[in-house]
Amino acid sequence: MIYLDNAATTKPDGECLKTAEKYLLSEFYNPSALYKGGYGLQCELRETRKNIISLIADFENFELVFTSCGTEADNQALFCGGKRGNVVTTEGEHSAVFSAVSELKQRGIEVRFAKLNSDGSVNIENLLSLIDGKTSLVSVIHVNNETGAINPVNEIAQKVKTKNKFTLFHSDGVQAFGKIPFRLTKDIDLYSVSAHKIGGVKGVGALFKRKNLVIKPFIFGGGQELGLRSGTENIFGIKNFEFAAVKKYKNIKAYYEKALKLNALFREKLDKTLFTEISNINCSPYILCVSAEGLRGETILHDCDDSGLIIGTGSACSSNEKKRYSRVVQACGYNEIVADGILRISFSCENTENEIIEAADILNKKVALRKEKMA
Amino acid sequence: MIYLDNAATTKPDGECLKTAEKYLLSEFYNPSALYKGGYGLQCELRETRKNIISLIADFENFELVFTSCGTEADNQALFCGGKRGNVVTTEGEHSAVFSAVSELKQRGIEVRFAKLNSDGSVNIENLLSLIDGKTSLVSVIHVNNETGAINPVNEIAQKVKTKNKFTLFHSDGVQAFGKIPFRLTKDIDLYSVSAHKIGGVKGVGALFKRKNLVIKPFIFGGGQELGLRSGTENIFGIKNFEFAAVKKYKNIKAYYEKALKLNALFREKLDKTLFTEISNINCSPYILCVSAEGLRGETILHDCDDSGLIIGTGSACSSNEKKRYSRVVQACGYNEIVADGILRISFSCENTENEIIEAADILNKKVALRKEKMA
Repeated sequence: MIYLDNAATTKPDGECLKTAEKYLLSEFYNPSALYKGGYGLQCELRETRKNIISLIADFENFELVFTSCGTEADNQALFCGGKRGNVVTTEGEHSAVFSAVSELKQRGIEVRFAKLNSDGSVNIENLLSLIDGKTSLVSVIHVNNETGAINPVNEIAQKVKTKNKFTLFHSDGVQAFGKIPFRLTKDIDLYSVSAHKIGGVKGVGALFKRKNLVIKPFIFGGGQELGLRSGTENIFGIKNFEFAAVKKYKNIKAYYEKALKLNALFREKLDKTLFTEISNINCSPYILCVSAEGLRGETILHDCDDSGLIIGTGSACSSNEKKRYSRVVQACGYNEIVADGILRISFSCENTENEIIEAADILNKKVALRKEKMA
Repeated sequence: MIYLDNAATTKPDGECLKTAEKYLLSEFYNPSALYKGGYGLQCELRETRKNIISLIADFENFELVFTSCGTEADNQALFCGGKRGNVVTTEGEHSAVFSAVSELKQRGIEVRFAKLNSDGSVNIENLLSLIDGKTSLVSVIHVNNETGAINPVNEIAQKVKTKNKFTLFHSDGVQAFGKIPFRLTKDIDLYSVSAHKIGGVKGVGALFKRKNLVIKPFIFGGGQELGLRSGTENIFGIKNFEFAAVKKYKNIKAYYEKALKLNALFREKLDKTLFTEISNINCSPYILCVSAEGLRGETILHDCDDSGLIIGTGSACSSNEKKRYSRVVQACGYNEIVADGILRISFSCENTENEIIEAADILNKKVALRKEKMA
């Protein structure tokens, strides 16, 4: 089996699972408990926060709130940051942001969507033109989860602040964290990440928050997570996330180079006559979006699955939206025929070159066969 | 080490961890993915929902929404159910409900608190007197997490519906599920449970919802969990929860009898001259709340910890509230001196009689020593 749907979820890293195992087997206490076992975990959590923040930001300027997933972190950012006036976002957001702003709209907040370039990155000029004195929040995805387009969020945030210094800036960093080398500048107020996209387990995410920014909790209760996210801390999942993230950042440049190589190799082996490439050379090397124009992506996904190759069609999270055509790919300017044939191949540094060659071969053959049948 | 803080969290059941391990090691797919691996997990999740519902309710009448914890389930029930008019709850709620209704108050909803009896159960007559034509939601904890008092929620719900058939009824069942034999009747609209209180892992909870009840999502995004709770499903945690819950219910009566026995033994061995018993004979056998009147509970907790006995002081989740006296114990009618000495001993069916005898002995000695020192 060749797994090339790493943007949907990754296989949990075995070494990190092993290291975190003790938080299931012996250090299982409630971190809010006052005895040594509980208090010790609370102290460990403080260190964990510090360690994870330091990977992409200055510890002095940011705080970290652990959440149950990237979606929850996005929701907290949107609902706690977008309280009044208007909210500006892009047509290329993950459904976690897209659905949350739809709900904000229901609650009387005006929502403005910035247009995309053909690779899925946001048209910055258009985005800036939407911001005015009443814009409470801007949310721009860091790496587009369908096309891999990278938005220069630090640069965008700085421009946003120049237009309105009171506007909060949030970015969904789920497909960037642990993959793309970058650091958060002081213009970023909120930044969402997820554990299971980088070898951690499902059920853990986090929201980076600028230290002097005051927001309300999203989940209310016992006051865990600096009072911003109640519920017994998922200590196993959180420590496992720390181990996975630290491991990724230790070699982030080498992994990035490897992803670039795998991505280039896949493109090279792909039969150019069968596919339209949506992702371009500036996109994240971890995601390659192509369209088997004229065919249905889902059909090809199943064909490949039958031959032991696992790939995606756009976002796994959109499969519940029951919409045939990717909203994001259409916003890139493609028609329904291109959007219908969308396939997302997403790499992990665990993938081998042999896997890539075999995968491209399977994909070429399956698409060729379907096209022959149609002819 | 003797662990008697099982109401704060339980040690994850080793057998259930082993059985669920494959969802970390091989079946790690995103359950929203369309290929066989992902779709297969989606089907398994459907069965899991059915299995868990069937443990305490008729599958025909209820749906299950997996959440990240009991607190999130409580928040979803409160924020999605308490939309208008007034909300009626009790003075004995867990902070997950207490803090959520405080937030509802901020949002303009009137909140009314029913008084408690001395064991921490709600004064039903008082509760019913608070309900009127504008009551949108009533929330009553099933088993009080500090005293173990059992509220007859089916009976209360039925009486609530008689007063106002449009009022929704929610119960926080975190300390009842998997412990107290009972079944949900049709008068219960929403019911929250948690995995890590019954041998599951932290990071998983669930909200039972009456099937024909329409509520809004709490976390918006890809539309997972019947559209009511977005975010990639924590398949390992959820399956592990299923295994732990099924295991508990297989022997629920035997476990209950064992807890009764352990509880009675502990009471018997406790030096009556040193403690005031807050929990009475009708409370859940899994929780025993006593006060070392005149001393500080936290001091005794640390003394016991030093001798290898782990017990709690009220709710672990309240430790972040930074309040010295338990809000719930004071609502039972006790003064600050009693409230200051509160200790919560909470059992698991894994505890042995020898552990109980030794624990009571340690506790007696520690309290006696402190009282001597004070005299």
